[in-house]
Amino acid sequence: MSMPYLTPAIRLRRTPFSRRVEAAGAKAYTVYNHMLLASFFRSVEEDYAHLKRAVQVWDVSCERQVEIVGPDALRLVQLTTPRDLSRMANDQCYYIPMVDEEGHMLNDPILIKLANDRYWVSIADTDMLYYFKGLASGFRLNAKAFEPDVSPLAIQGPKADKLVARVFGQEIVDTKFFRYKTISFQGKEMIVARSGWSHQGGFELYLDGSEYGEPLWDLLFEAGKDIDIRAGGPNLIERIEAGLLSYGNDITIDTTPFEAGLGKFCNLDTATDCLGHEALLMQQDPSRQIRSISISGPPVSSITSYWPLKDYEGDRAGHISSATWSPDFETNVAIGMVHRAHWTPGTELIVETEAGEQTATVRDSSWI
Amino acid sequence: MSMPYLTPAIRLRRTPFSRRVEAAGAKAYTVYNHMLLASFFRSVEEDYAHLKRAVQVWDVSCERQVEIVGPDALRLVQLTTPRDLSRMANDQCYYIPMVDEEGHMLNDPILIKLANDRYWVSIADTDMLYYFKGLASGFRLNAKAFEPDVSPLAIQGPKADKLVARVFGQEIVDTKFFRYKTISFQGKEMIVARSGWSHQGGFELYLDGSEYGEPLWDLLFEAGKDIDIRAGGPNLIERIEAGLLSYGNDITIDTTPFEAGLGKFCNLDTATDCLGHEALLMQQDPSRQIRSISISGPPVSSITSYWPLKDYEGDRAGHISSATWSPDFETNVAIGMVHRAHWTPGTELIVETEAGEQTATVRDSSWI
Repeated sequence: MSMPYLTPAIRLRRTPFSRRVEAAGAKAYTVYNHMLLASFFRSVEEDYAHLKRAVQVWDVSCERQVEIVGPDALRLVQLTTPRDLSRMANDQCYYIPMVDEEGHMLNDPILIKLANDRYWVSIADTDMLYYFKGLASGFRLNAKAFEPDVSPLAIQGPKADKLVARVFGQEIVDTKFFRYKTISFQGKEMIVARSGWSHQGGFELYLDGSEYGEPLWDLLFEAGKDIDIRAGGPNLIERIEAGLLSYGNDITIDTTPFEAGLGKFCNLDTATDCLGHEALLMQQDPSRQIRSISISGPPVSSITSYWPLKDYEGDRAGHISSATWSPDFETNVAIGMVHRAHWTPGTELIVETEAGEQTATVRDSSWI
Repeated sequence: MSMPYLTPAIRLRRTPFSRRVEAAGAKAYTVYNHMLLASFFRSVEEDYAHLKRAVQVWDVSCERQVEIVGPDALRLVQLTTPRDLSRMANDQCYYIPMVDEEGHMLNDPILIKLANDRYWVSIADTDMLYYFKGLASGFRLNAKAFEPDVSPLAIQGPKADKLVARVFGQEIVDTKFFRYKTISFQGKEMIVARSGWSHQGGFELYLDGSEYGEPLWDLLFEAGKDIDIRAGGPNLIERIEAGLLSYGNDITIDTTPFEAGLGKFCNLDTATDCLGHEALLMQQDPSRQIRSISISGPPVSSITSYWPLKDYEGDRAGHISSATWSPDFETNVAIGMVHRAHWTPGTELIVETEAGEQTATVRDSSWI
């Protein structure tokens, strides 16, 4: 499939930064949580090289927040995840698998604890708001779930520290990984976390109020002029090199946390209130699991449906869910689901792409 | 904003008909329920004219089904809607507002009753599956919610009857409005309803099994050759002329059924199990409501965020949520939310489009 056009509509929501993103030359978009997300600006390859050497500002407003507030807020969130939330600090962010009663993945958000009775769930591309609403009604919890006017802006890349030091001060740079601090922008308090969907380091600023979007964007770009600041977005090549999973691509509602390699976030001894707890107890020894996989041969095309993996006897061995050419590693980097019999690092398999068969090798870890 | 490109990804799911849709020359897409939906083929205007004179086949697989099955199926669905489902027949389809506890719209699907303990909810663009899962868990209901491998294919236009008579027989053509009958395709039973998101008449066939998609498509196109059959999709111009509301555009989670003009589907005397029942009782006399609105002057541009409506004193009077030029009515046709003080048919207002101010007139009904 060549790249098609996307028909504009209100239903595909614009963000507080959309005009700046357009002015910066966004060339293509995806739709994520009913909202526009720029995929690349110059090209995926150019953006990738720049991300690894400089600093980028990403409009990731589409990482919508579900705010959970009320006396039963913690209880409501804990129902949805096997990660034990009881010791979470008030300035902390957790990456958490969210599951249904069958232990199947519904989302893999970042949870942000704002107060003992107030959380933000920074969601991947499914309407978690609806799950929380259903649970809150059904369990008659004293907690409200809604989408606030909050839009994350990511600052990513090796020069992110330099930029943030200039704009918000060294104290913010000193924030520990997956912790946040509060800044004041034009008199409005907002949180900045050391996090982001790349392995280049950086921050996510949770814009609190759409009206602050363009002034904030302009402030950052003015301050970063001499360090080659550019608009960017989650980069397909870099995120596969980093082994970052994408809900809807690598993980779906058919995946368990253990199959996704997220067993370390399943505290089954303590997080017994999670609705999926009983199911998860039976799933700890999965028969398939997500792996990083290299694919030799020529650069692969865009992947728009799973590519089957098979062994040399022709038996099904799993599938590839993400793949692209990596200029830095000079191979195709990929993520896929591999059956137990084939998941030993170094195992060679055959992948059936639209363009034909290529050799795939299971890795023991991601590239970066 | 000029029309941007859409970056392909597995997360933007292809359908059982995608290869045929591409071969038919789809020029642009939208994303709906995490799935591709072709917006137009030749142009929106050409597709519109053709829809009104011939027959089109629409890949509306993105109208995903949520299957609700089990002894508590009816109870689970009734929790979500103020429409009384108790007298629904076993071959019937209902258009239903779905609301949360506050009486706010979560979706406006077609409900299909397959059996006393089995329903399909043919959803607009939100993850209703998650709401049903949350409710089923919270209320401990004996009902399961999941997404089956079912993909609707719409057959729309004045010659739809002719095509369906040829392919499935006169008995299917004789199906009453919002009722369905069962056909057999290659030995597989599937349902065909007299319904569809246009006012040109037609059917929706619920493809049951992706593997039947291309043979079914080919059968229809072969049978319709001499009556100018074409691929199409929900048409922006025609659906506004018909006053068909679009969730995410005209209706959102901030809208009540009464504001959406869906009061006739709220059986507040009998559907007392609906979770929003108490809230809805207080909302029956709304201070704003959706109206069809004509906009004079030159053809308007694409609408990507609400256009404010104001009166001649400059007071806010509502907003426009859908708008486009109608070749047949030689005016801009629109849908918007209008405050009570301004909603009398014939009221003239000012609409602020990106291109400047134009005159808007509130209508008493849609165009067709």
